[in-house]
Amino acid sequence: MSDPTHALPHGFRFAGVASGVKPDGQLDLALIFSESPAVAAAVFTQNRFAAAPVAYDRELLAQNANHIQAAVINSGNANAITGPEGMARARRMAQAAERALGLPPASALVMSTGVIGVPLPIHRIEAAMPALAASLTPDEAGFWAAAQAIMTTDTYPKLGTREVADGVGGRFRLAGMCKGAGMIHPNMATMLAVIVTDARLTPEAAQRGLKLAVDASFNRISVDGDTSTNDTVALLANGAAGGPLISTDSPAFQTFVQALTDLSVGLAQEIVRDGEGATKFVTIRVWGLAHDEDAHRVAETIATSPLVKTAIYGGDANWGRILAAAGRSGVLFDVTETELWIASKGPGQRDFLPKLHLVSGGAVLDYDESLAALHFAETDLLIELQLGRGPGQAVMWTCDLSHEYVTINGEYRT
Amino acid sequence: MSDPTHALPHGFRFAGVASGVKPDGQLDLALIFSESPAVAAAVFTQNRFAAAPVAYDRELLAQNANHIQAAVINSGNANAITGPEGMARARRMAQAAERALGLPPASALVMSTGVIGVPLPIHRIEAAMPALAASLTPDEAGFWAAAQAIMTTDTYPKLGTREVADGVGGRFRLAGMCKGAGMIHPNMATMLAVIVTDARLTPEAAQRGLKLAVDASFNRISVDGDTSTNDTVALLANGAAGGPLISTDSPAFQTFVQALTDLSVGLAQEIVRDGEGATKFVTIRVWGLAHDEDAHRVAETIATSPLVKTAIYGGDANWGRILAAAGRSGVLFDVTETELWIASKGPGQRDFLPKLHLVSGGAVLDYDESLAALHFAETDLLIELQLGRGPGQAVMWTCDLSHEYVTINGEYRT
Repeated sequence: MSDPTHALPHGFRFAGVASGVKPDGQLDLALIFSESPAVAAAVFTQNRFAAAPVAYDRELLAQNANHIQAAVINSGNANAITGPEGMARARRMAQAAERALGLPPASALVMSTGVIGVPLPIHRIEAAMPALAASLTPDEAGFWAAAQAIMTTDTYPKLGTREVADGVGGRFRLAGMCKGAGMIHPNMATMLAVIVTDARLTPEAAQRGLKLAVDASFNRISVDGDTSTNDTVALLANGAAGGPLISTDSPAFQTFVQALTDLSVGLAQEIVRDGEGATKFVTIRVWGLAHDEDAHRVAETIATSPLVKTAIYGGDANWGRILAAAGRSGVLFDVTETELWIASKGPGQRDFLPKLHLVSGGAVLDYDESLAALHFAETDLLIELQLGRGPGQAVMWTCDLSHEYVTINGEYRT
Repeated sequence: MSDPTHALPHGFRFAGVASGVKPDGQLDLALIFSESPAVAAAVFTQNRFAAAPVAYDRELLAQNANHIQAAVINSGNANAITGPEGMARARRMAQAAERALGLPPASALVMSTGVIGVPLPIHRIEAAMPALAASLTPDEAGFWAAAQAIMTTDTYPKLGTREVADGVGGRFRLAGMCKGAGMIHPNMATMLAVIVTDARLTPEAAQRGLKLAVDASFNRISVDGDTSTNDTVALLANGAAGGPLISTDSPAFQTFVQALTDLSVGLAQEIVRDGEGATKFVTIRVWGLAHDEDAHRVAETIATSPLVKTAIYGGDANWGRILAAAGRSGVLFDVTETELWIASKGPGQRDFLPKLHLVSGGAVLDYDESLAALHFAETDLLIELQLGRGPGQAVMWTCDLSHEYVTINGEYRT
């Protein structure tokens, strides 16, 4: 994760404090502040039970996506399934940030993550806000504190930065932080991510760029197949880098999208690596189907199969479960065209070791069982599955399903 | 379980032996024999990688569903993803049974369950067949041995019997056995079930009756959302009870379907209770949606959510995850019409204790947290979820996700 080699984007400040929403004195309230009004874009959960802060942000961005100056985020409580009172508290949380920062109304986004169905302790958040605003810094100390304050069951903060030439003599910077750990699945996970950039973007370029980056990153990961009520990925672009305004037609738009996607893929992969109880990182490539959607559906079914995930956890070369999952995905293909390979790399290695061909033409090959066992024992696994000769392909990243996942989620509230 | 109060159907014999497919000397080969040709019906896995025995039985029943006299079943090896050689071995397994029993060709069904992608040790099965045929008995000893021989990770054999008046002065009997444990999910699980009856059925009545019963039983259960390559539910009806032939128009058809469904629900629920690592049994009722299919999709999403299942395992009253799962099911509903109740019964109780109302109008109620904790601590849980005022409803049965599930499936092969 994180490459602290790049400068943070200009014109942003960050902070994280302990407000008491989490009972144990851990950081639980983060603030991200832009010194000038920023263009904002966001992608939200598709869950029908979208939480109050999601509903609040959707409304806010529909009215005022060009003058956002803050994002305030709490962990420890999701403010979800909390009815009209939850909506009122999401609003109060945003207003408390605006007051503390001297901002006009409707200029702060709000996000929450944590337990569902418990009233948000808004008084604690309101009480902590002045100190939070006072502790904002433009450097890595504040950035790190904010990233820590949004964590729930994450074991480390997830950060990343990028710096890119804008093609006309200038440079712009991106920095992102996210939290994940459980309830992680395509169409947005229990996942919050905030990416800030000093690039000068039109609102359309911000929204379109974010959508493209999220589709290639956060929507390609799965920890447990569960999708949360609170998922949000937000982008704030304050233009502090100067340079020409980037629209979707600008040559620099591709450069921006590439940097944003690259940053997002890095953050998304960190979420999987730090998935609840995860001990292994798994890359699943599927191709040869009629459409990309078909390949994605097969990859997703494999990525969410408890039998595949427990076999990988146990280091059991039970590859039949991979095909069994593909076979129940609902996608039509000719099983006699099935080819399956497995590869791996250990913690110290940069590349995958030579692939082992397990299945050809839909039938098991006479493969070296001890080599298969070696691959399944490694921490970084690659599964490659060809299901025909069509152009449809997909990649997904997932983790294993361990005892620790069960422990964490059997006692999350208690 | 099983209710050994009823006589077994007339004209059937059963046996189970250890053939050596399982390395540890456990029973692994079962035989069910009808003394006269029986009408046969079956429902198979929808998995694209349907195993060789499934393909063999499909062909056989398409040609000759009225003269089946045997079903031979091995555990320890699924004979799946084994290519043309696997198909040849499935055929040899059926032929070995026909030879040992002196039956004409194409009169034996064949089923396999166990590890995928390992060549079936057909010589061991062929060698064991004469002793298997010689040990057939029409009583509970043989029935019990056969039910034990089809087990994989099951911790006990699953049996049931029913006896019903045929409405015209006679009676007929049904007896069923099944195995489950893991890879259990609607559209047929890693689940084998054989039900025999001495009722006199037309082929259409057998097939239609079985389909109705399976839809209301085996297709309503989920252990882990995985669907196997080998799932088969087969029905053999040999008519030994005499009485008038039962067609789909006969008054006795409803009686038969009711008894078959009742038996199948009992067997299906035993599969869930003995799910891999299961410590709790969960009934999920969903209603108020536009269509039954919508309600089933919501119930299925809840039943397969790792977060819901681990919370139930841990006895954590984290009901928000139930709604989060419903919300990501893809079904449209008005969240402000959501009502959620939870109830439970302990091991010694016959009925669910009074329900606790947790959510009304889409918002959390001020409920008694300690009572919620009591419900979640029990072994038999009822979740009731109303999502509107439509006629669509569904029920599903599932279990929790425990450390033991991870242990079992992390070392299944090794």
